Amino acid sequence: MINKLLVVGTMAYDSIQTPYDKVENILGGAATYISLAASNFDINICIVSVIGEDFKSNHIDVLEKRNINLTGVEKIKGGKTFFWSGKYRENFNIRDTLKTKLNVLENFSPEVPSKWKNSKILLLGNLHPEVQLLALNQMSKKPELIILDTMNFWIDNFRETLDKVISGVDIICINNEEALDLTQQKTLVEAANKIQKCGPKYVIIKKGEHGAMIFNEENVFFSPAFPLKTIKDPTGAGDSFVGSFAGYLTQTNNFSFEGMKAGLIYASAIASFSVEQFGTYGLQSLNKKMIKDRITKLLDLTNFDSALINLDLL
Amino acid sequence: MINKLLVVGTMAYDSIQTPYDKVENILGGAATYISLAASNFDINICIVSVIGEDFKSNHIDVLEKRNINLTGVEKIKGGKTFFWSGKYRENFNIRDTLKTKLNVLENFSPEVPSKWKNSKILLLGNLHPEVQLLALNQMSKKPELIILDTMNFWIDNFRETLDKVISGVDIICINNEEALDLTQQKTLVEAANKIQKCGPKYVIIKKGEHGAMIFNEENVFFSPAFPLKTIKDPTGAGDSFVGSFAGYLTQTNNFSFEGMKAGLIYASAIASFSVEQFGTYGLQSLNKKMIKDRITKLLDLTNFDSALINLDLL
Repeated sequence: MINKLLVVGTMAYDSIQTPYDKVENILGGAATYISLAASNFDINICIVSVIGEDFKSNHIDVLEKRNINLTGVEKIKGGKTFFWSGKYRENFNIRDTLKTKLNVLENFSPEVPSKWKNSKILLLGNLHPEVQLLALNQMSKKPELIILDTMNFWIDNFRETLDKVISGVDIICINNEEALDLTQQKTLVEAANKIQKCGPKYVIIKKGEHGAMIFNEENVFFSPAFPLKTIKDPTGAGDSFVGSFAGYLTQTNNFSFEGMKAGLIYASAIASFSVEQFGTYGLQSLNKKMIKDRITKLLDLTNFDSALINLDLL
Repeated sequence: MINKLLVVGTMAYDSIQTPYDKVENILGGAATYISLAASNFDINICIVSVIGEDFKSNHIDVLEKRNINLTGVEKIKGGKTFFWSGKYRENFNIRDTLKTKLNVLENFSPEVPSKWKNSKILLLGNLHPEVQLLALNQMSKKPELIILDTMNFWIDNFRETLDKVISGVDIICINNEEALDLTQQKTLVEAANKIQKCGPKYVIIKKGEHGAMIFNEENVFFSPAFPLKTIKDPTGAGDSFVGSFAGYLTQTNNFSFEGMKAGLIYASAIASFSVEQFGTYGLQSLNKKMIKDRITKLLDLTNFDSALINLDLL
């Protein structure tokens, strides 16, 4: 039986400027990146989202070619798709949002298709916590795993609702600065501990080019990011990361901490392709051989001769 | 035979402010941190540096108790020891220098004691590249390994001399922002490649709390930083790191890339103790059992069940 992953998130058009290049109105959105990344696994994926009448049919094709089910995507007649534009500064360290037009997202009420209400894994992608909650409450039975991705905007403006979502999920995926911001702690170890007390048994901290960590109550595991020669566009890297992670777990059905560690390694490998090209192009052109090669290199990065770590040396 | 490590660098008094605490006139300086960190290994260490008449005898004791040879440390009558004060901003991400008084460092001309001119490893700690060059040229035979640590101030102000030093060393140790600055590249992979073309066969990139990487011509290895619950003072973390690395290589005499990988792991472990306390206190109170325990935990951080990374899954 092929397991089901349900993804709730945005679909968007993005205009992106980097210090070296710019693109306009390309396919974007959290659910788009997530599901493209997850589609590398042998699973069934369904998106719950909303688009406008302007959403191009060839972009529908991009997703459907990857076997992504779009029955949960509502198309609003006369509406326009959510639009975001942003600009990266030198070295991609800082991103300024230039424009956000919610458009059809403004009045979005998610509808989970009945066939998908029993999905094994529910991934609540980065969007309004109210929408995340509405989708979560439509599930006919509690998913075996609920993963939440969120960001500073929701932490700063919709904290109460977000806290409700956080208390109901198994895994939260958040970046390092947001983890410190959310918890008002000084180190990631303290931040992860504090988040765990709010509900999530597992905390994933995304550190971008510096890798990612996963904490459970007692342990922590770290996966480095793949050191890239060229970075073109970091947009969607976090979505690609959590999407791959969820895709891996959906296929393997191994929700142990060891299973999650492996998921983190797959996620690091797949997300690295996302930033090598603008928008979702890196994910669209991805094949299994490319992923395998990158995982091999990624594992080499932390591989050493354990015989040389002779602790009796000291 | 016990191998010799020669360390050229500053000895200083530091006043340090963090968002949570402050200390005044504590023992500091690159050579101090380096040699205290290196003293965890079974090696002979000699410092080449300069101090003023104000340098306290109990600080001499701190170093001599760790078997650090100070015959290369010149004490200037009536002179004052190099002084630095700095302030860390929120989360320790940014450090502002408040005051730098070169004092006796201003006219420092290093003198390598004759017994140490044949040291196996020479570590040129972070200070004026002219001083590094003067020390290097005093060696009676080329050390088997020359390691250079430097920082943005020297890159920005004494580039020509620094380039001369860089071209004569085997390993350069530099932080991530400085590597991009030095090479005017956009990624660390490109920066490392470019630095290697200038001479150093190995490039170590320090990323602070995000770990460290070492590149040779073909390979790259990454060691994470130990995720600390409390950070008190990042001053000297980079010095402690390179000092431990050099100490490990001096003891093991294994200068292969595999040996250097192991050195990076020891360096990450020992440097993590440095930032847990102000100044050199974390290094002063360090014992072998503490290091062994931390290395075990550090290795756990990237340890996974390789059976779960089944590439045929894809």
